[in-house]
Amino acid sequence: MSTTAVAIAPDFADILAAANRISEHVHRTAVHVSRSFNDLVGAEVFFKCENLQRAGSFKIRGAMNAVFSLDDSTARRGVVTHSSGNHAAAVALAAHERGIPAYIVVGNNAPRAKIEAVRRYGGQLTLSEPTLAAREETARRLLDSTGGTFIHPFDDPRVIAGQGTATLELLDQISGMDVILAPVSGGGLLSGTAIAAHGVSSAITVYGCEPDLANDAARSFASGNLEKNVSQATIADGLRASLSERTFGILRQHVNGIVTVSEEEIIHAMRMFWELFKLIIEPSCAVPVAALLSRRMEVAGCRVGVIITGGNVDLHALPWLRNSSTL
Amino acid sequence: MSTTAVAIAPDFADILAAANRISEHVHRTAVHVSRSFNDLVGAEVFFKCENLQRAGSFKIRGAMNAVFSLDDSTARRGVVTHSSGNHAAAVALAAHERGIPAYIVVGNNAPRAKIEAVRRYGGQLTLSEPTLAAREETARRLLDSTGGTFIHPFDDPRVIAGQGTATLELLDQISGMDVILAPVSGGGLLSGTAIAAHGVSSAITVYGCEPDLANDAARSFASGNLEKNVSQATIADGLRASLSERTFGILRQHVNGIVTVSEEEIIHAMRMFWELFKLIIEPSCAVPVAALLSRRMEVAGCRVGVIITGGNVDLHALPWLRNSSTL
Repeated sequence: MSTTAVAIAPDFADILAAANRISEHVHRTAVHVSRSFNDLVGAEVFFKCENLQRAGSFKIRGAMNAVFSLDDSTARRGVVTHSSGNHAAAVALAAHERGIPAYIVVGNNAPRAKIEAVRRYGGQLTLSEPTLAAREETARRLLDSTGGTFIHPFDDPRVIAGQGTATLELLDQISGMDVILAPVSGGGLLSGTAIAAHGVSSAITVYGCEPDLANDAARSFASGNLEKNVSQATIADGLRASLSERTFGILRQHVNGIVTVSEEEIIHAMRMFWELFKLIIEPSCAVPVAALLSRRMEVAGCRVGVIITGGNVDLHALPWLRNSSTL
Repeated sequence: MSTTAVAIAPDFADILAAANRISEHVHRTAVHVSRSFNDLVGAEVFFKCENLQRAGSFKIRGAMNAVFSLDDSTARRGVVTHSSGNHAAAVALAAHERGIPAYIVVGNNAPRAKIEAVRRYGGQLTLSEPTLAAREETARRLLDSTGGTFIHPFDDPRVIAGQGTATLELLDQISGMDVILAPVSGGGLLSGTAIAAHGVSSAITVYGCEPDLANDAARSFASGNLEKNVSQATIADGLRASLSERTFGILRQHVNGIVTVSEEEIIHAMRMFWELFKLIIEPSCAVPVAALLSRRMEVAGCRVGVIITGGNVDLHALPWLRNSSTL
């Protein structure tokens, strides 16, 4: 899919450089804690609140790093992506901030809120049929006609390095961390998280967390081969992608294990988090929260960091209302 | 209703003393800002986030100040209140922290969540018929039998002084404030807010904000007499009480005006705040937010502080879902 990115992984120096590059363009987000939650899970848990980040998610970190890595003449031709989620809004905002065009391909069934977010930040929308193949083909045509740069939501070392800056910040804000958890979808965030964590201290244990209904990472770890998700059914709409060769390679090197949770656990954890922290988190963020509540990892007495990834939720379709009879 | 409190107002020194007394028992809450919101209202707005406070609201400040003001022999007999809202949970937690009993009278129609909050903090519940008269009578019997101290939700100088510490903190966190807004119900928070603001600077303008459907303060200001709310219909369930002689006296001296907003404006402001800030706020908090959006006050170019009072919301009964057809 074009771009100069070869299948390499960023290293810790790339994350340090990204942090420097994007510092003026992203918030240094707060870390929230709750005594009640700590009592429940028997650990000291520090939530890095990227739901309070610009454009509502950590995705702005990778997008800013990618967009501000481009040389001027390349940048001028604009950037292209075909994610319909938080990455699309992030790329639109990053491009706006650099003063270059962002061409965003969105499936014609995408939620209105996602489309509005892209528009709000000045992104130029192109609608396509709602399949991945159709979106990729539309993006390819846009790349051909504009000479722009494709910014993949996760399979890009610049994006991975940008996402890693959240963990770099967290480890600067909180000392003596033993364990870090992040959700895993395509693996960009978890790759950046793990590289950043081990750049700071090789003693930190890193876990990925994913829904049972999108457990490609757990299956890939188990089989040693890159497995793909076959269902899009999880309510954690940010976690439906599958790993790439690049991210799988990074995770095998740096990640200690993958923990999976059920849809019921995700919904329960999400609602509990809203009630306890008074912070709006997406279903995807609730996956590591659910993993902690499930006690499927050894974290007793540990200092645990959790990357809370985003807060963009459809307030008219909350999962505990749709599923209230099962809770 | 017993207690040693006479009908006096606290002064700025009482608020300073309260801040000192409760500092170990309450959070120094964060101040949140949003560029998008500022653009919308044409002012720089600083939200003091007491929804992130212990027990989920500013009420813990007044409760802690009242409970920790008691001498040991008085304290030992316990404290009594008959609020069913955030004040009840706050009194229960404050008493728990001092190691004394809290006797909480709750109407037998109170929402389960409110009752659970009181129980969680170790409060001893007594159910009564759901009228104010019945709750007062039950509280009176408890006071007689225990020799405890009544802690009124707002008509108490210790409570008012405690609530004022939120503004003291805000003005320490943010310099050069021109205007401060707080919702007004019984007037305890607004009284403390105004005394604290004018203790710091007499140049600060203070507005109270209330629902059209519970506009006793606006009517009292207009008539010069203490007026009462006749309806309990507003969705801002924390703002249904009416001023007392004490709080009305304080407000007449310190508050520049009362702004009222409609139910539709409250619901719109609440949802917008959730989407923009990713923070859960109660309908009551949305009243000053709605007042700013309505532009019914002169705040162009000002630095405006807003006390966000609490985040205890029934996540199964969100107002934009109940009223979605009207929005």
